[in-house]
Amino acid sequence: MISVAEAEKRIAAAFSPIDTEIMDVAHLAGRVLVEDAVARTDQPPAPVSAMDGFAVRLADGGAPRRLIGSAPAGHPFARTVGAGEAVRIFTGGVVPQGADAIVIQEDAASDGVMVSFDAAACAPQHIRAPGLDFKKGEVLAAKGRRLTARDCALLAAGDIAQVKVRRRPCVAIISIGDELSRPGEKRMAGGIVASSGYGLYAMIQAWGGAPCDFGILLDNEAEIATVADADADLIITLGGVSVGDHDLVRKVLGTKDFALEFWKVAMRPGKPLIFGKLGRTPLLGLPGNPISTLVCAILFVKPAIAAMLGTPFEQEILAAKLVRALPANGARQDYMRAKLTRRDGEYWAEAFAVQDSSMLTVMAQADALIVRAPGAPAAAAGDRADVILLDDH
Amino acid sequence: MISVAEAEKRIAAAFSPIDTEIMDVAHLAGRVLVEDAVARTDQPPAPVSAMDGFAVRLADGGAPRRLIGSAPAGHPFARTVGAGEAVRIFTGGVVPQGADAIVIQEDAASDGVMVSFDAAACAPQHIRAPGLDFKKGEVLAAKGRRLTARDCALLAAGDIAQVKVRRRPCVAIISIGDELSRPGEKRMAGGIVASSGYGLYAMIQAWGGAPCDFGILLDNEAEIATVADADADLIITLGGVSVGDHDLVRKVLGTKDFALEFWKVAMRPGKPLIFGKLGRTPLLGLPGNPISTLVCAILFVKPAIAAMLGTPFEQEILAAKLVRALPANGARQDYMRAKLTRRDGEYWAEAFAVQDSSMLTVMAQADALIVRAPGAPAAAAGDRADVILLDDH
Repeated sequence: MISVAEAEKRIAAAFSPIDTEIMDVAHLAGRVLVEDAVARTDQPPAPVSAMDGFAVRLADGGAPRRLIGSAPAGHPFARTVGAGEAVRIFTGGVVPQGADAIVIQEDAASDGVMVSFDAAACAPQHIRAPGLDFKKGEVLAAKGRRLTARDCALLAAGDIAQVKVRRRPCVAIISIGDELSRPGEKRMAGGIVASSGYGLYAMIQAWGGAPCDFGILLDNEAEIATVADADADLIITLGGVSVGDHDLVRKVLGTKDFALEFWKVAMRPGKPLIFGKLGRTPLLGLPGNPISTLVCAILFVKPAIAAMLGTPFEQEILAAKLVRALPANGARQDYMRAKLTRRDGEYWAEAFAVQDSSMLTVMAQADALIVRAPGAPAAAAGDRADVILLDDH
Repeated sequence: MISVAEAEKRIAAAFSPIDTEIMDVAHLAGRVLVEDAVARTDQPPAPVSAMDGFAVRLADGGAPRRLIGSAPAGHPFARTVGAGEAVRIFTGGVVPQGADAIVIQEDAASDGVMVSFDAAACAPQHIRAPGLDFKKGEVLAAKGRRLTARDCALLAAGDIAQVKVRRRPCVAIISIGDELSRPGEKRMAGGIVASSGYGLYAMIQAWGGAPCDFGILLDNEAEIATVADADADLIITLGGVSVGDHDLVRKVLGTKDFALEFWKVAMRPGKPLIFGKLGRTPLLGLPGNPISTLVCAILFVKPAIAAMLGTPFEQEILAAKLVRALPANGARQDYMRAKLTRRDGEYWAEAFAVQDSSMLTVMAQADALIVRAPGAPAAAAGDRADVILLDDH
């Protein structure tokens, strides 16, 4: 039995960035850059006005100017502004040759032929220089970045139509158990509905992976052997523990070129975890109990996906105060389901009274997991605790 | 010119929940329930063992028991456990008739024929009662809830194959401007690449809407008139302000059954905002400048989508401390781009030195917007400020 930290380390080490694909800028949100995204243009591409007003020459001082044309955005004025001349200009309009200042319209009076204003109103600072926002060749988003909605706008502004991103890692989800059926299907006496896979599927999507539901296998050697047929970047089995923890899965996969890395992690829920490689494909065998599945997914699948995407990963641990006292912890690292509230800038975590690992209702209502180290002493109300936010929505 | 709060109120009031669709439980994450999701089964469906061990009768005390069969998960033992008898049982296995306690395997010794243990090891608490997690008819997730990954697992466990959810609101994005082109396209002199729509598209997706990019229209009456052809739950126009703020959009839409609700909001960036109804369809005209577009989207589009989905919405405002002093604010509510860090459990916000509303690089690097009320006095380093998190990834 190994520690959670050791399991995290060994799982992370087993994954490396997968291959790439070209993606249109319209569909980049959440994708991970494989190369720096480099601006293909200056922004703005030319000197432009930051205001609606008049483009003038500073050297003409406070003298009234003769209007010789206009320069709305997208319609540059083609001639040069000479002495005593002005051009009506609008926000985003290209400042014409010769002009070196803007008078904003609120500071000017114009009859359509002439425009007059105070000399002090001539402001060079209302001209945005070419490349003020960014210059051609500048890195707009660095390799390895998971792109935000704002990045999508920025890359488009940089005239980047397509970029190379990491392919979404394909994660096979295989449920194992004679007792399982799909929602809505007829069930055997004492049978239960397979549920863990549905939560795992949604989490994998949220983390940037491409989940694939391979369905339910019966708890026998012939069916379990088909796990080896799954074509994926990561295979996750759920359950299959009916006769001893994962014994059958280990036994069957042993005949299929399965190299066991470790099994059993000192944690609750989720002890009987199995990890290894099936040929070249990492395989993670998680307990089928949905609470165990989902807690293990947060701890081990999320970083595995990040490693395959080539993004840095650190499990985000928040400091919270305990609403109620907690008993001393046993030998396994505990992940207690809890409500989390924020008061006066501090997080307060309240563990649910019922921590039975079969209670999916409690898991669904929880906001966070309180992390309790192996052998942690009893904690009093108000004591500080580490929590992991459950932000899967 | 109206206040941001007034604009928020009037926009929210203009939207109501849209129609519904039936969705498979496999694709529910992020969707909003229209009806309560009600369990169609007890979970567990029968009394089950929480441990690997032996199902016994308490009344038999510490006497050795004769093994009469086994009950793995999915394979209930069909007969009744009589006096002096025991059944080998596994986690999730149905507790057979007659048995009322579990002896966990670590506390028992068995030769495969008999099993012996201490009377004190007989534990009724290792039996999970039918319906311990939830009972048939119980509400697993309430109407109006936006479903999490964990909810997906819970609904599946409740034998719910499909549920009625709100359709994703269709949001048309229409960019307007003679100066605009698509990324990678040839540009006119002084032309710029349309970028706001790409960021808005990704934000709308993240908020649960279905964005539709209607492309770029030229700044003339004939093109702008085609806005009225967009079939959507919300139409958003970006830009079209080349000759006076939104004058052309207002003028053209006025001939198309457009009822103006308001325009101009006392905010920076984003003042020239237009809102009204085009026939029965709400229309929001945002400034085309990408920073204005994205800030206005967070303030006005996000709650509009929530209202169409029938989910409660409150803009999440965090309290942060200022890293650096800020000058007094003008008459408009200001949304300053800022870096946000967490130190000792407190948020610290540092406004970027450059707040020019054309700087998309700054917007992309920002973590938060510092909200400055109209007329707010100068603030010192360490003073408290309201911030909105930019969490569009």
